[in-house]
Parts: sequence; C-alpha cells; structure tokens
Amino acid sequence: MKAINLLGSTGSIGTQTLDIVTQYPDQFRIVGLAAGRNVEMLASQIRQFRPEIVAICVEEKLPELKEAIKDLDPQPILLAGEAGVAEVARYGDADIVVTGIVGCAGLLPTIAAIEAGKDIALANKETLIAGGPVVLPLIEKHGVKLLPADSEHSAIFQCLQGVPKGGLRRILLTASGGAFRDWPVEKLPEAKVTDALKHPNWSMGRKITIDSATLMNKGLEVIEAHFLFGMDYDRIDIVIHPQSIIHSLIELQDTSVLAQLGWPDMRLPLLYALSWPDRIYTDWEQLDLVKAGSLTFREPDHEKYPCMQLAYTAGRAGGSMPAVLNAANEQAVALFLDEKIGYLDIARCIEYVCDRHQADNCQNPSLDDIIAADQWARQEVLAAHKLMNQGNRLISLASTAQI
Amino acid sequence: MKAINLLGSTGSIGTQTLDIVTQYPDQFRIVGLAAGRNVEMLASQIRQFRPEIVAICVEEKLPELKEAIKDLDPQPILLAGEAGVAEVARYGDADIVVTGIVGCAGLLPTIAAIEAGKDIALANKETLIAGGPVVLPLIEKHGVKLLPADSEHSAIFQCLQGVPKGGLRRILLTASGGAFRDWPVEKLPEAKVTDALKHPNWSMGRKITIDSATLMNKGLEVIEAHFLFGMDYDRIDIVIHPQSIIHSLIELQDTSVLAQLGWPDMRLPLLYALSWPDRIYTDWEQLDLVKAGSLTFREPDHEKYPCMQLAYTAGRAGGSMPAVLNAANEQAVALFLDEKIGYLDIARCIEYVCDRHQADNCQNPSLDDIIAADQWARQEVLAAHKLMNQGNRLISLASTAQI
Repeated sequence: MKAINLLGSTGSIGTQTLDIVTQYPDQFRIVGLAAGRNVEMLASQIRQFRPEIVAICVEEKLPELKEAIKDLDPQPILLAGEAGVAEVARYGDADIVVTGIVGCAGLLPTIAAIEAGKDIALANKETLIAGGPVVLPLIEKHGVKLLPADSEHSAIFQCLQGVPKGGLRRILLTASGGAFRDWPVEKLPEAKVTDALKHPNWSMGRKITIDSATLMNKGLEVIEAHFLFGMDYDRIDIVIHPQSIIHSLIELQDTSVLAQLGWPDMRLPLLYALSWPDRIYTDWEQLDLVKAGSLTFREPDHEKYPCMQLAYTAGRAGGSMPAVLNAANEQAVALFLDEKIGYLDIARCIEYVCDRHQADNCQNPSLDDIIAADQWARQEVLAAHKLMNQGNRLISLASTAQI
Repeated sequence: MKAINLLGSTGSIGTQTLDIVTQYPDQFRIVGLAAGRNVEMLASQIRQFRPEIVAICVEEKLPELKEAIKDLDPQPILLAGEAGVAEVARYGDADIVVTGIVGCAGLLPTIAAIEAGKDIALANKETLIAGGPVVLPLIEKHGVKLLPADSEHSAIFQCLQGVPKGGLRRILLTASGGAFRDWPVEKLPEAKVTDALKHPNWSMGRKITIDSATLMNKGLEVIEAHFLFGMDYDRIDIVIHPQSIIHSLIELQDTSVLAQLGWPDMRLPLLYALSWPDRIYTDWEQLDLVKAGSLTFREPDHEKYPCMQLAYTAGRAGGSMPAVLNAANEQAVALFLDEKIGYLDIARCIEYVCDRHQADNCQNPSLDDIIAADQWARQEVLAAHKLMNQGNRLISLASTAQI
C-alpha cells in the first residue's frame, strides 16, 4: 500500500489521481490533500478520502472550508497559503507526492517534498523546465525518485526500465502535430482560436491544446526530457506521429529501439507513476493495433512550428532561459486565447522576450532567480503586446539561427 | 570480456557470431568451436580465432581437419562426433554457448552446456519446441539464462527487461505474412516453390522462407514463447505486420504496451544475446521511422494459414506433440521444396501426422522420447506422401476444431 500526498487535488491530475485511489483501495491511500480555491470539491474529497492533513492555497477560503467539514470527526489538520501547501507536501509517512499544481507555484512544495525524502509523481512541468537547475541537485542529494506522470515522459521512463546505465543513445518524442498538422504554412496567419483548439487526438485544456498546435508542448517536453533523463539536446528528437498511439521511443547504443504504446489515455502514465515499479491490472480498454490502423511518421516542419526551435535554443542556453521561455509562452498563449494577438504572434512574442533575457541569463539560478525570471517574462510579453498595439514590429535577434 | 563456445560455427548464426566477435575484440573471445562438416571454413575460423577446443560433428572429416591446421602451434584440442560437440559445449571457462546447430542434433550439446552452468544464446529452436519439457527443468536447476537470439523472442525479451514478476499480460508476435500475404486464399492451390520463396522483408534460407509463407514459423515461435516466457497459449497472439519494423510487443497488466523496433537485421538480436544485459554501441544503420513509412497491422487469416492453428493445437497438447509438429513440418517442407507435394499438402501432412501421434503423446517425455517422436514424425510424413502418391486422401481427425 502506497501513501500519497496529493497537491492540486481539485484539478485534472488531482481528480484522476483520486479516481485511481478509489479504484485501487488496497494499493493506495491518501494522507494529505492540497487545493487552490475550490472549497466545495475539496470538502467533498475530504469526506471521501479522510486525509490526515489538508491545505487550501487561497488563505481567505480557509474559514469556508472549516465550516464545510466541521461535522467530521476526527478533523484533519487544516492549513492555508503556500506554506500550508508545502507542509502537506512534506507531511507524515506518505511515500509519494503527486504534484498536480500548475505553474511556478508548484516549485516550492515540490522542493519541500523532495527535502522530506518523498518520491515525486511529476505532473508540474515547471519543476524541471524552470526549476531543473535547483531541483536536480536536491533529487540527487535526497535520493528520491522523479516519476513522470505525463504520457511522453512516462513512455520513455517505461522503456528505460531495463536499460543499463549508458545504454541510452537517443530519445524520440512523438507529437500529434496538433490542430495545424495538415494546414499549409501559408494559411497559418489566418489561424483563429477556434481552429487552434481542434486537437486531433487528446481532449485537454485550452492552454495545452494551443501548445500542441504550436508544438511548444513538445519543445517544453524536450527540455523536461533533458533534465529527467540527463540527455544532451542533440540526442532528443521530435517526430510527428498523427495517431498518438506510440507515446515515445528510445534508441539504445546497439540501434535497438524500444517504444511504449497505448490508446491516448492520461490515466495510464499517472497509474504507472503511482504504482512503479509494479504493474497493476486494469480493466481499461486494451490496445488493438488492427483497430488503431496505420501508424505514420513525419519530420516536423520547422517553418510551421517555430516554437519547437525556440525551445531547443532556450534549453541549450540553460540557466533561467527555459523558465523565461515557459512563462513567455503561457502569457502569449493567454493573449492569443483572449484574441489579443494573432496565432503567429505567439512565437514572435516568445522569441522577443527570450532574446531580451540573453544578457541577463543566470547560469546557476536560485529558486528566487527562477521565479523572478518567470514574472519578468510575463511582464515582457505584456509590454511586447503594448508595443505591437502601438504599431511597432518586434525586433528579435535571430535566435532561431543558433539552433 | 565474455568467453564464447560456438556450436554450428560454419552456419548462418555461426558466421554472424564470428563477425560480431571480430568487430568487438575487447568484448568477446572464442573458447570453443564446433561445426558439422565444412572443414575448409572451420580451419579458416580456427586460424583466425585460435580456439582452445574444436569439434567436427562428421567423424570421418577429422583427419582432413587435422591436416588442414597441422602447422598451428599451439594446437587446439580436436574432437569429433556428437560427443565431441557436446564436449565443446561444456568446455572451459566460456560464459555463454551459442547454439547455432539446426535440428534435434542441437539438443544434446545444449543440455551439456546447461549442465556445465553456461548461459545459452538460443538459436536452435528445437531446444524449446521439442526439448522444452526436458530443458526447462535443467535451466531452473542450474540457474543459467536462456537468451533468445532470434528477432521476435529477442524483441519480447528486450521489452521484458524492466517488467516486474507478474507484470506481463500478453505477448504479441508480429509476422510479415510471408510470400502469400497478399494472395487470395483461392489461389493458394496453385502456389509454386518459386512463389513461396519470395519473402517480402527478410533474406533467409529456403526452409525458413517457406515456414514464413505458411506462418508455421510464427506458430513455432508461439510454442517457443510459451516455454521461454512461461505464458499460456491463450495469452500469446499473432498479428500480421507487413513492414517487419516492430519485431514483437508485450502488453502489461495495466494495458501499457511495449515494443521493440528496428530494421530487419538478424545481427541485432544476436548481439544483444551476447552482450546482455549490456548494450554495445554499433555503427549499424539507425532506424528512421519517417523512412520506414506506415506501420500497418492485420489479423492473421486462419483459412490462409492453417499451420498457425496446427501449432497452437500441438502446443496445447504439450508433451512430445510440438516435437512431432516441428519434425513433420520440416519433412513436409523438404518434400514441397523438392516439388514432391503441393503447397497445401504441407499443412495436410502435418495435421495427419499430429493426429496419429495423439494416442501416443507422452506428457513427460525423456530426451530419448523426444528424439524418437521427431524421427517417427519424419517417417510418417514420408509414409503419408507414399499414400498420397497412391491416390489416397489423408484422413485427419479435425484437429483444427480443437483450437
């Protein structure tokens, strides 16, 4: 039986984690829960899973939460604020902490969990993309495991299980190609929000669906894979695989290639992160290759997906640059979703902001440096938007030329 | 550095093994060599690899071999006959024995190697298909490893490396579909030897190419997989995969599927069997999925491939039945290659002989029982051929109905 502290319990990763705990009561139990501001759902989760400790991040919601569960006996420890969330992360005898918190807000509690010697089921991408330079040394120092809970990194992690040290030669991340996979490049200036939200295979949130259209999701995964598996950027490649059946592949030193396959279903990587190294029987739909049809592959088109190159460049720059890339992307995508900027402006804004960070890029950033860079990048995108609104053209150094 | 005793050094597996040893002199060295009758090639191999011990199976060739290497100093120990081959198998400080001998002749030396505590790079299919009931208890008793050196079982073995005990749910063997993959069933009665020898992907010997056309190769692999990975026949499936890029797959308890991929190249599984658990860098052509094109899958057609069902039935019958199936197939294919019987007669002969063995099927066969069953089956196919030549129709119990 594994004991879990779950951060972000009312979000997508959180509710799926609780579904798994409900389905396998003999395998998993909840020790701690932390959520943002959704009191109603959190209270209901507390009633069902009876955690020992609970935190709500938005402090002013604490009285409401107290009221909502006042009849429970025994009462859980109730905390609030970021410090409360970090307390849940490090609490008690939990074996593993699921980090389902979005953004740099996930960094501090993840670090708290690592310092408390707990394994991490990694569902917060900032932990490595932004926090890599800070988090990795801590992982090493405290001897904990980072267990990827997303589809692509889980695929690589699964394939790597039997691979000896030094056996890995290349990582191949598969990408669906997103909503514009079959659009000609010339048509992209016309791309609207509704077009970009039409993801071919996965049903996901709006932000991540846009990232899938720009292939920034894959660029960010390249950076995450770099930190997670210790691979040079030269040895991480992307291939377009429209069917999303092969979730990623690894090539070994002898040219043998291993792949992990399955229907597109976010629960599988999450279950494996929780059950690792075991494999738990599920009654989920089994993969049927005949039904899946042809599996096809294409080289990604760099002209169509400039964000991919921006991510490689930022990853190679290292330091706080990946944090800037990630934050600039989030802000730019938010502007696009609000129809404040056009589709192609997403990449333009990110390139502009990353360029401006080059001189200040801090190679050994502290956690504070990273959070500051994240904040700065968001402001810079807004400033860039203002410039564009005033009729200016964003002048970027040709950062893509460095790829 | 691994020390190797190589049985069948002048055959296809043997020469490929020596190519690998030549390419990686720091990784492998040859301790013993055994061959059938090719004195010239064996003498040349002795000069190049300077083994400590050598055996030639055909005893009357020994004087010729002695003469061919008489100038060598020091001389290797020179032996002849089956006993000599078994002596090479168990000799000295070799870590691993490559069993590249064809047929039941490979059984005795493989057992000798196991009893001497040596790991086996398994390239002799009779070791498990015919010898399974005898060999498996010995493997267990002596704590040695069976390392598959063929493409499909190596694929499964590679995928299984990181899988915990009990984690395997299903094995999926891929089959090219052979020469008649795209023939309508109705046209098969006309199939000629030249048609059956047109294998779409692999360049192999004549016998195995026919087995690929009938899918008996896959049926035999099912039986081998049953013994090698301890899987029920109900949990071993076959899928037609015309491109031969995915070499086989496994499904785990949680529905996750792992696959091993590569260009069709027999050297890769052989290298892995020799280097296991390590992965040695090679400069062989790396897999390029874009270049490989679409990967497609079809259900195998039982009407087109009756041998597949015969193999499942024989496997489930157990005992000496798989030995009978294998020997009957070899004899029937030989008759087909000599244009003595038609293409569809291959399956008819095998079914007829397996049916006749049912009453005598020995559930706990000794090595002698297995070798006797193998010999009996070959004679029975010849007898069946005589019956057919006299204008009789082979009357089989409907063994396929038991599948």
